[in-house]
Amino acid sequence: MPKLWNVTIEAHRNAVRDATLTATAALVAEHGPAAVTMSQIAKETGIGRATLYKYFPDVETILTAWHERQVQSHLDQLAAIRDRADSPAERLEAVLAAYAVLSHQHPGSDLATSLHRADHVSQARQHLHTFIRDLLSDAAAAGDVRTDVPPGELAIYCLHALTAAGALPTKAAIHRLVAVTLTALHP
Amino acid sequence: MPKLWNVTIEAHRNAVRDATLTATAALVAEHGPAAVTMSQIAKETGIGRATLYKYFPDVETILTAWHERQVQSHLDQLAAIRDRADSPAERLEAVLAAYAVLSHQHPGSDLATSLHRADHVSQARQHLHTFIRDLLSDAAAAGDVRTDVPPGELAIYCLHALTAAGALPTKAAIHRLVAVTLTALHP
Repeated sequence: MPKLWNVTIEAHRNAVRDATLTATAALVAEHGPAAVTMSQIAKETGIGRATLYKYFPDVETILTAWHERQVQSHLDQLAAIRDRADSPAERLEAVLAAYAVLSHQHPGSDLATSLHRADHVSQARQHLHTFIRDLLSDAAAAGDVRTDVPPGELAIYCLHALTAAGALPTKAAIHRLVAVTLTALHP
Repeated sequence: MPKLWNVTIEAHRNAVRDATLTATAALVAEHGPAAVTMSQIAKETGIGRATLYKYFPDVETILTAWHERQVQSHLDQLAAIRDRADSPAERLEAVLAAYAVLSHQHPGSDLATSLHRADHVSQARQHLHTFIRDLLSDAAAAGDVRTDVPPGELAIYCLHALTAAGALPTKAAIHRLVAVTLTALHP
């Protein structure tokens, strides 16, 4: 097959895949994970059931793929935020504030819990830890973060402290949480 | 029945109940929650199967009761630690340090996750939050804790930050975590 044709097939496959993940996530949000069937997903997306089964063997696989896409999108957002800030201290603060907002928008949901042992989650968690640790290292080298505690431990502290945003009711409270968390990082 | 007889029956019931919870927890720790049966528990405790079923209808109920006992025992430990310390600041520090150690010893296990929607857990979480919030209020009134953030929000921050202890490898690292977390509370 010519190369262009392959590209078109690939784009089509990605479109079908994306539409399936989005429709499934919407159905799960409305009815809960246990109530969603492959037939419903086919109906919702307008993709034939036979075609759907070519892409995904079952609902659980779709949910795992959807969650993987969510997690990756969050990591991408954090990386973009990091790249927009100028100094190590600003990068650290901007990324931690964004992480708090994400934690608030996606507190440990049933879905996240049921999938929490998935490989991609522990990989993403490791990636996130490394990402924050490096920001802390840079800020420490610039004199903006304490050096008496290893950056890896400070990263674990930050990530746990900021998940508190999931239990806070307002943006103002989340803002205060970020400020409190950052206070502890000062040299 | 005379009162003393009731007390004796009650003590016997509590002993059977306690033995069942302890034996079940040990079996679950060894074989995992899915592999434990009522017959195994009966064998392990030396309680007849018929008697066991008079106390608990199934393994899940035993595990819930066991978890409830664990949670209550942790709350009792924290209250005892609070009562041994003298000043508001010392009470706060001693309780938060003890909470970090408990978080390290019992990181979110499969068991905790599978039961996390149980009523007693959300009650205990609420109780713990109130408990820490009151310690923070007292320490704030004594001038030892910042007053620009409500004590309820600081309590949420502390509880989340200190669960990081579950991800730390050593006592020294947990000690540093407690120190870092406390830094953010200073006025």
